[in-house]
Amino acid sequence: MKRKKLPFSKEQINIITENYPTPFHIYEEKGMVEYAEKFNNAFSWNQGFKEYYAIKAAPNPYLMKILRNLDFGIDCSSLTELVFAEKMGMSGAEIMFTSNDTTAAEFQKAIELGAIINLDDISHIDFLEKQAGLPELVCFRYNPGALKDGNIIIGNPEDSKYGFTREQLFDGYKILKEKGVKRFGIHTMVASNELDPDYFVETAEIIFELIAELSEKLDISFEFANLGGGIGIPYKSEHKQVDLEYMSKGIKNLYNKIITGNGLKPLKLFFESGRAITGPFGYLVSTVLHIKETYKKYIGLDASMHNLMRPALYGAYHHITVLGKEGKDCNQLYDVTGSLCENNDKFAINRLLPETKPGDLVVIHDAGAHGHSMGFNYNGKLRSAELLLRKNGEVVQIRRAETIEDHFATLDFNALPDFEV
Amino acid sequence: MKRKKLPFSKEQINIITENYPTPFHIYEEKGMVEYAEKFNNAFSWNQGFKEYYAIKAAPNPYLMKILRNLDFGIDCSSLTELVFAEKMGMSGAEIMFTSNDTTAAEFQKAIELGAIINLDDISHIDFLEKQAGLPELVCFRYNPGALKDGNIIIGNPEDSKYGFTREQLFDGYKILKEKGVKRFGIHTMVASNELDPDYFVETAEIIFELIAELSEKLDISFEFANLGGGIGIPYKSEHKQVDLEYMSKGIKNLYNKIITGNGLKPLKLFFESGRAITGPFGYLVSTVLHIKETYKKYIGLDASMHNLMRPALYGAYHHITVLGKEGKDCNQLYDVTGSLCENNDKFAINRLLPETKPGDLVVIHDAGAHGHSMGFNYNGKLRSAELLLRKNGEVVQIRRAETIEDHFATLDFNALPDFEV
Repeated sequence: MKRKKLPFSKEQINIITENYPTPFHIYEEKGMVEYAEKFNNAFSWNQGFKEYYAIKAAPNPYLMKILRNLDFGIDCSSLTELVFAEKMGMSGAEIMFTSNDTTAAEFQKAIELGAIINLDDISHIDFLEKQAGLPELVCFRYNPGALKDGNIIIGNPEDSKYGFTREQLFDGYKILKEKGVKRFGIHTMVASNELDPDYFVETAEIIFELIAELSEKLDISFEFANLGGGIGIPYKSEHKQVDLEYMSKGIKNLYNKIITGNGLKPLKLFFESGRAITGPFGYLVSTVLHIKETYKKYIGLDASMHNLMRPALYGAYHHITVLGKEGKDCNQLYDVTGSLCENNDKFAINRLLPETKPGDLVVIHDAGAHGHSMGFNYNGKLRSAELLLRKNGEVVQIRRAETIEDHFATLDFNALPDFEV
Repeated sequence: MKRKKLPFSKEQINIITENYPTPFHIYEEKGMVEYAEKFNNAFSWNQGFKEYYAIKAAPNPYLMKILRNLDFGIDCSSLTELVFAEKMGMSGAEIMFTSNDTTAAEFQKAIELGAIINLDDISHIDFLEKQAGLPELVCFRYNPGALKDGNIIIGNPEDSKYGFTREQLFDGYKILKEKGVKRFGIHTMVASNELDPDYFVETAEIIFELIAELSEKLDISFEFANLGGGIGIPYKSEHKQVDLEYMSKGIKNLYNKIITGNGLKPLKLFFESGRAITGPFGYLVSTVLHIKETYKKYIGLDASMHNLMRPALYGAYHHITVLGKEGKDCNQLYDVTGSLCENNDKFAINRLLPETKPGDLVVIHDAGAHGHSMGFNYNGKLRSAELLLRKNGEVVQIRRAETIEDHFATLDFNALPDFEV
């Protein structure tokens, strides 16, 4: 598919850099809101449909406020993310707590906030009961194992640490029922960054059939099915965006057949997408520091893998635009690097780009999810600022850059003279 | 080789956890000091020998103070690391600044501190001169390209972003000389985590021969050769520690033959090891939160990949001990996981260990380099504390754990109500 036009020009970025030096992440409100609305609209046939934004993708309160205004909930996976939700003023069914290998403190905070609790393991029923008490509504995460193929990023479900087996689901809901739990949900998530819409339709079929069977055998009813996240985005130009209308229609047909057809109670559908919601609407903007020619040609940026780990961590492709040179021939072969003493610190290897010079502005696309949030401080690198391009064209800072003082906050240099060696 | 005995018992760790909850990194001063002294002793034949600790491996001022007391310098690669050195009170030839894709501010700080400047690229001569002025002493980083094979972690030198080609070295030193630079150094680093001692001897041979040729052709003399880091450590029991005496002897023979034999001025040898110096003497200590049985058996720790990225990032092996069960049969097959919503969050896959229960203390070995320092905050995970087991048996905290407040420091939640959506 044709790559969408950048929401900003070189001239606009030049003005922005007067106040905010590169590198920075910039998010585009308009695109994000339009996509989020499209998602909601695609599933408007389902009463109670809710998208829980996977906050790990871009844990920024300003982005979350925009999404919340579109009726999005928040998908949290840790104590810190629950506290983030709390600081946003969120509570109850606005929060889905999907964790694994969970601590007592995490369950206690989730219960305190009234979050929907999604258990990852059958042993967590007792653990939760003991540590925080069982809530009225409980959800289990299902791992279909060999029933379902995974994909490259998440691997095969039977090798994945997440979720209950099928047998454990039957045992688990039975235990919940005996313990007086009255309301039930079910969740699965077996892929990440998946572009085939049929994949999500098949996942819904597995879940709906399981709900029908569980409901009948255990005489319980389900309030919701969380179909997970995992909706991919077209990182490469040849990728096709997941067709939400097509996917929704496929899921609706199965819903009518399996849920309505079996006389089951209406089921709310939830998703917990992160990547699809903010990924394509965030850009990493960087300045070329150096061009280097040795055995290969290198573009050296002022951004490094600490701003975007995906290329180094997963070998992931991210499209790159040299601002103001969009019309030029891409006839130069470059490795695009950062400045870490870590040989993986490359945004692209053997990428054809127009001839590039120090001072050029470079945009790395699709950095709006798992970008800033995965950044580390290796080599003493400081994480950069996050900006938001508002619908009215205004640019606001929604996270300041880290300072050296932030970086040294956990170290006590003052006590060093008293440390005898 | 037989794995060295842990420097602490289960009982000692139990006492430590009364003050410092798991997970934490604990470093062992005794082992670290003994190894550092062994390194210095192996090269005592070389007048001016100096090991520059690659601070990225474990950027802790207390560890650096111990090493500095053993005459170690500091190898810095970024502005933050230079500021770290400054806060330690280090300056001049105590600091080697080996960067790449360098900013003006970094060169300015390095010059301000009087650090030895190691240039990564021929274009940096002009850049440094313009931005900070040329110092009296300049070093170049050599990338031997196809002359030398790399290894798995660093890849092939000709695909690596670092250093000058051979031709560029001849041009570069000539330019330096013309610009009035009087003192010269040379550096190379073509492997990481290498266990073959002959590899370092061969590297020395390449560098010594190059020095002889450069000295003759350009009529300059070299003060030092920095042979880089890259000395591996025996992560696996079948690995053999690099024999420093053997390596030093091989390098000495070549030194006598090529440097002394050609009537060249005495050459100081430098190394910039990180991993070898602290890696084996740091341990990640964690508590088992959950045992999970689905398609596989899982040990769920309270540590996650944010405490030690190497298994997830490189598929690296780290030995694991269940404290107090060292004598038991390793007859249970486990995946050892953390709690991130990230399927790579595993410390070990299909590892045979003794039967393990919630509450057991687990030690992950060789976490003293590229452990804490590579940690990120993905999923809102907070980086843990660093402790030091002193030679006298005392345990001191040398870095406090991150708090949720640290984590949110760059976000302004207070301005959120005024943010209109």
